[in-house]
Amino acid sequence: MEYQNTQTTAHTNIAFIKYWGKKDAQLNLPCTDSLSLTLDGYFTTTTSKFISDNEDQIWLNGQRAPVGFFKRTQKFLDLCRQLNHCKQKIQIITTNHVPTAAGLASSASGFAALAGSLNKLFQMHLSRAQLSCLARRGSGSAARSIYGGWVWWQQGSSDQTSLAVPIDEHPQLPICLLSVVFNDQPKKISSTQGMERARTTSPFYSCWPHIVANDLSAMKKAIATADLQQIGQIAENNCLAMHALNWSARPAFSYFTDATWKLINLLQQWRQELQLVAYATVDAGPNVKIITQKNQVQQIQARVQHSFPEAQTTILYPGSGIQ
Amino acid sequence: MEYQNTQTTAHTNIAFIKYWGKKDAQLNLPCTDSLSLTLDGYFTTTTSKFISDNEDQIWLNGQRAPVGFFKRTQKFLDLCRQLNHCKQKIQIITTNHVPTAAGLASSASGFAALAGSLNKLFQMHLSRAQLSCLARRGSGSAARSIYGGWVWWQQGSSDQTSLAVPIDEHPQLPICLLSVVFNDQPKKISSTQGMERARTTSPFYSCWPHIVANDLSAMKKAIATADLQQIGQIAENNCLAMHALNWSARPAFSYFTDATWKLINLLQQWRQELQLVAYATVDAGPNVKIITQKNQVQQIQARVQHSFPEAQTTILYPGSGIQ
Repeated sequence: MEYQNTQTTAHTNIAFIKYWGKKDAQLNLPCTDSLSLTLDGYFTTTTSKFISDNEDQIWLNGQRAPVGFFKRTQKFLDLCRQLNHCKQKIQIITTNHVPTAAGLASSASGFAALAGSLNKLFQMHLSRAQLSCLARRGSGSAARSIYGGWVWWQQGSSDQTSLAVPIDEHPQLPICLLSVVFNDQPKKISSTQGMERARTTSPFYSCWPHIVANDLSAMKKAIATADLQQIGQIAENNCLAMHALNWSARPAFSYFTDATWKLINLLQQWRQELQLVAYATVDAGPNVKIITQKNQVQQIQARVQHSFPEAQTTILYPGSGIQ
Repeated sequence: MEYQNTQTTAHTNIAFIKYWGKKDAQLNLPCTDSLSLTLDGYFTTTTSKFISDNEDQIWLNGQRAPVGFFKRTQKFLDLCRQLNHCKQKIQIITTNHVPTAAGLASSASGFAALAGSLNKLFQMHLSRAQLSCLARRGSGSAARSIYGGWVWWQQGSSDQTSLAVPIDEHPQLPICLLSVVFNDQPKKISSTQGMERARTTSPFYSCWPHIVANDLSAMKKAIATADLQQIGQIAENNCLAMHALNWSARPAFSYFTDATWKLINLLQQWRQELQLVAYATVDAGPNVKIITQKNQVQQIQARVQHSFPEAQTTILYPGSGIQ
């Protein structure tokens, strides 16, 4: 076998139209489309090689991976071995440049980078569309981290048709995000558990696909016209609708704390009184990402730090797809 | 005119299936049916008489009524004068035995007692059904305080058909409620404002009438079979669905605080681990009413006081209709 460089880097992404609910848990087929922005700055770099050991070797940030990470990664290695009719053990060396304080999930960049690296290792010659399908099997949102900029994950109806497509890999509008981390404790209900409880028990879930379809259509128009306020407003609305599914689930649960609500209310106030562009999006935890524009982000960061002296804030820009 | 005793007493009520949204704001016609339990202990007593002054005189708890209360009451007096082709000024003396610390709205008992007193004053000889319609014009939930025990407010489609009917005025099941007040500050968004914003902006509102119809049908069965756990579970689910409308409204708002969520989660835990009967219902504020049974309420009160030493707790029992 020729020498290969299997190193692959993938960036994190943030959903502006949320993914919340699977129609097929084994294949990670979502109940709806979703739409995200890939971010610069935070990424995962992964290399892989075949080894002659009896066990896979998985290294995370220079150390043996903890058991949960090991098992989830190994399951993905098994999938790739199966696809390639191969039984050889594999060494994975992965580095997550996604600090907890950034309030970003690392599974999106993690499985995108892993899929990219294994594509090289097994010489699968997958297209980016096929790579998006493969990454999806590791973590739904990883399907989107294959591409840079604005990315649309089409739900599809099978393993081969549920994949992301790029809408605009190099956005020209002056968008940026301010991540506000109140609390970096592990969440009590994982996003997988949370979305499944919402899907199966919220009496509003039947409305959710219609909401996503409407929001997605409006968001595509807003992206095409570079209308940052519309992008922010649609994203905030969509995020709150997603969380309303959790609040109406049975039993009910909430990822929000008082700080989350306080900041959301402050943003409403700053938009009205100060004409700032500042909208919230929140994932499976209490932390907020503020959608804003480059020439306002420092003012907003200062205001946030004033209201939440304990919070950690990070400015995030659009980023590129896997390399 | 013969001497009349116009004194009327009405009790507060708590909705187990919530009223949230008006299809006609002027007539207070709701978008859905609702169902409540009238409570003992807290009530409003009102007397009325004609006076020869140039102005209505309205006394609340021994003092001249504040301007907001005066205007809302006077509007109701105007309605009754119009119905009776009368222009005479009226004196109202009303006493609210509804302490703020009980966490109960006084508008339900207030307008039920006022309607009852004016029915006597004007010698309208209204039936209880007609009285329910009249009270509704003052405050939607007052329509239900005409009756004792379990009361079903049928939305109807006109001023004459939107009225409450009694389901069981003397419930035999050992139900009681524990009111838990974290915060007696006035709410920032009134229930009238809140329900209107939810109705007009929540993308889930179109689901709400279906949810109420299902919950109402299940609740009637649970009442008929005296199944306290079912009653509690349906009420808690319905309440959280109502609040999810607010969380998904545009702009979003929430009446809950961290304490509200903490107590709701504790109740879930106590049900699972201690087999206690304890379910939450929450109206337009952060405070919780716990639905429980008589032989467990003291244990639950002690547990609540232990977790929330600052909270004020009050035990509430089913009560009777207007007298």
